[in-house]
Amino acid sequence: MTVYFDAASTAPLHPVARQALTAALDEGWADPARLYRSGRQARMLLDAARETVAAVLGARADEISFTASGTQSVQLGLLGALAGNRRRGGHFVHSAVEHSSVLHVGERHEAGGGEVSVAPVDRGGRADPEAFAALLRPDTALAALQSANHEVGTVQPVDEVAARCAEAGVPLLVDAAQSAGRTDVPAGWSLLTASAHKWGGPAGVGVLAVRKGVRYASPLPADEREGGRVPGYVNVPAIVAAAASLRAVRAEAERENARLHALVERIRTRVPQLVPEVEVVGDPVRRLPHIVTFSCLYVDGEVLLTELDRAGFAVSSGSSCTSSTLTPSHVLAAMGVLTEGNVRVSLPYGTAEADVERFLAVLPGLVAGVRAPLGLDLPAPEAPAGELLLVVDALGKRCPLPVIELAKRIGEVPPGGTVAVLSDDEAARLDIPAWCGMRGQEYVGEAPATEYGGDRGSAYLVLRRS
Amino acid sequence: MTVYFDAASTAPLHPVARQALTAALDEGWADPARLYRSGRQARMLLDAARETVAAVLGARADEISFTASGTQSVQLGLLGALAGNRRRGGHFVHSAVEHSSVLHVGERHEAGGGEVSVAPVDRGGRADPEAFAALLRPDTALAALQSANHEVGTVQPVDEVAARCAEAGVPLLVDAAQSAGRTDVPAGWSLLTASAHKWGGPAGVGVLAVRKGVRYASPLPADEREGGRVPGYVNVPAIVAAAASLRAVRAEAERENARLHALVERIRTRVPQLVPEVEVVGDPVRRLPHIVTFSCLYVDGEVLLTELDRAGFAVSSGSSCTSSTLTPSHVLAAMGVLTEGNVRVSLPYGTAEADVERFLAVLPGLVAGVRAPLGLDLPAPEAPAGELLLVVDALGKRCPLPVIELAKRIGEVPPGGTVAVLSDDEAARLDIPAWCGMRGQEYVGEAPATEYGGDRGSAYLVLRRS
Repeated sequence: MTVYFDAASTAPLHPVARQALTAALDEGWADPARLYRSGRQARMLLDAARETVAAVLGARADEISFTASGTQSVQLGLLGALAGNRRRGGHFVHSAVEHSSVLHVGERHEAGGGEVSVAPVDRGGRADPEAFAALLRPDTALAALQSANHEVGTVQPVDEVAARCAEAGVPLLVDAAQSAGRTDVPAGWSLLTASAHKWGGPAGVGVLAVRKGVRYASPLPADEREGGRVPGYVNVPAIVAAAASLRAVRAEAERENARLHALVERIRTRVPQLVPEVEVVGDPVRRLPHIVTFSCLYVDGEVLLTELDRAGFAVSSGSSCTSSTLTPSHVLAAMGVLTEGNVRVSLPYGTAEADVERFLAVLPGLVAGVRAPLGLDLPAPEAPAGELLLVVDALGKRCPLPVIELAKRIGEVPPGGTVAVLSDDEAARLDIPAWCGMRGQEYVGEAPATEYGGDRGSAYLVLRRS
Repeated sequence: MTVYFDAASTAPLHPVARQALTAALDEGWADPARLYRSGRQARMLLDAARETVAAVLGARADEISFTASGTQSVQLGLLGALAGNRRRGGHFVHSAVEHSSVLHVGERHEAGGGEVSVAPVDRGGRADPEAFAALLRPDTALAALQSANHEVGTVQPVDEVAARCAEAGVPLLVDAAQSAGRTDVPAGWSLLTASAHKWGGPAGVGVLAVRKGVRYASPLPADEREGGRVPGYVNVPAIVAAAASLRAVRAEAERENARLHALVERIRTRVPQLVPEVEVVGDPVRRLPHIVTFSCLYVDGEVLLTELDRAGFAVSSGSSCTSSTLTPSHVLAAMGVLTEGNVRVSLPYGTAEADVERFLAVLPGLVAGVRAPLGLDLPAPEAPAGELLLVVDALGKRCPLPVIELAKRIGEVPPGGTVAVLSDDEAARLDIPAWCGMRGQEYVGEAPATEYGGDRGSAYLVLRRS
């Protein structure tokens, strides 16, 4: 069974979304523009879904239009706002690490005679509000800044940039694809975009919110659907499912964000201790709870992804939202960090701690295997002496299982790192120190298991010497 | 339970589509651009769906792109072909009865400096190939003709127009939204568009086919998805369901088309016999099997739709694809026929004959009720003397039920029309002639029920005298 660590590409369908989709295929299948009973019913479901999405995103219902994807939302939002604010001028500002859909619109805009300024980011991938604001001009028609980066998880200073845009009278589009549902969207946007399949909704639903009073001119021939902003038949069942899952995910967010934040923190800490010549990228503090990206020197990213897939882990690689060909990531390039051997781990809600531990257990060997043909002599990473690097949960297991677990897994930590074995088996108290003596490891001592996440028993601490 | 007669707006989800959707939510939920197992699996399902759709539509798989709706297909197809053939010129030709999405693109094209010529249609809504061809010029970049009309069901002369376009070197876009799946798409198109929810697939899937060698330039900033023609995340589960239902519908088409064609013929014949001052519009011969439209003088279409809804029938009205506000239909206007009191009946696959009979039974009273406040004295429609207008199926029912059924329903036919009562109850042979004598109707005679669609028993023919 493959462990899915690519939630930033698409989240598994939330069970609530599936239930809502099934129900809405029965109740909301008709054309919501029709006057008969089933049409009116579809319309009511659509209206209710719009209210739900508006409430979660901090918008009014009549500000929300549904599109077919996050990319369509971004394209319609940017092109519509650029057209609507043409009187101000043809200047467009966006950060260097926006989603490729934003960059592509910028390229089109330039090709059509417009002007584009790209705001730089720091080594953590974060835009500097001052630098961003310095690019705003009297002829700037639109600015765009993501809520958080899709490749490295860095949260952007949307509040500050929105304030500076407001001062300059420039509308700001906030692409919230990676954060919507998981974290609150900062107020201050003029246009907001999001994508349901990133929050556990079905594919085929994007959100485009346009604040009342923001100038907008449809870039496509419009019809009467979705406030004249999104032409074409409205996909009511999928929208109902998207709204239901957004509410469900929002309700789980506080608990799951804290949990995933800790798991990502563990990956951020442990990968450099386990793998030589690796760089964890992205802002270490101002980051999304569920995304972590690292790059491995001397490694072909595609080969490493294939090895991880064989080992049962579905992860993605840099520039992953634009490419099946693994061209170098414009995000990593703009940050000035290593782009090779890039792995993005993004945890879906419900990710099991054990799966993260197993990932950390197999990663060093896989990277070493990919590097082996190169014949490099890489220094082992230096673990801070005695730092706790691994918790082996053997609670409920009887002798000799706790010792077997320890023997199997101690290789996952480098020499100098510490393992805590949680056990409520009395024999462990004797066997673990004995095993340490036999195998040349250092037995450090015993502590209550509760200090290491257990609910009973003791933690036996072993420092790996060899 | 409402009877749904609005398949031309959206067809009920085909059971095969629902099954395929459920399966594909399990098997094809991942991003098909990804390299890991679940991504590759989604890609394989997407490829298979593309092959299926291509085979049914008479295209190569690499000519097919999936969009989010029929309207998006039309917009991308028209704008992309106009942009790709800009070197020829800025002239665009389409028929007067195209879907509103085509008209809207034409308006945009004109507003942007292009030129549009509109090919006229006859009173049946059919374009004249000669008149169409006469509009083609050396600077014509694109022509568009629907396969069949969405409001009146008239089948267009695509073969002839395609031949004339080919002679002139003008690419032709064929909007096959109303016919795809039900009838073969005529060859000769350069671009082809369709919409899955019209053939029983889910909402959220359109098809855009572009023949190899046809010049096309994406009107939107492109990404790598769908051959560079449709930006944004690909909705694999819905596409899988769309393809599965297309194949299923195609397999049922021969049988269902013949059946629905006969039911529509019955409506075309009977409505003018049952309702005074009514006009059935659209080509009576070159028509889709499942669509019939009629207009009732002195009637507000919206009021009639509401009455039909109350009586348990979901039908639509003119200009139904553009409007929830029932503005006059550009299709009916171009045909030069009555636009008021317009009702479009479009039968989904599986429509029961009994439901059509019930519709014909309630319609006259509803129209009369809507007209009553006007105090008009309308002449009763003239029924051809003795024409069979109603078959009452009382097979398996015992005395006195056959006579009760006859008494209940004879009012549905106007004086001078004939009713056939199918019965295998011996008492009917005596009772029906007796009832005729008592009630002043004319008993015409007896014939085998099989001549009137029964499988046993006799048909007792009664001519309504009063």
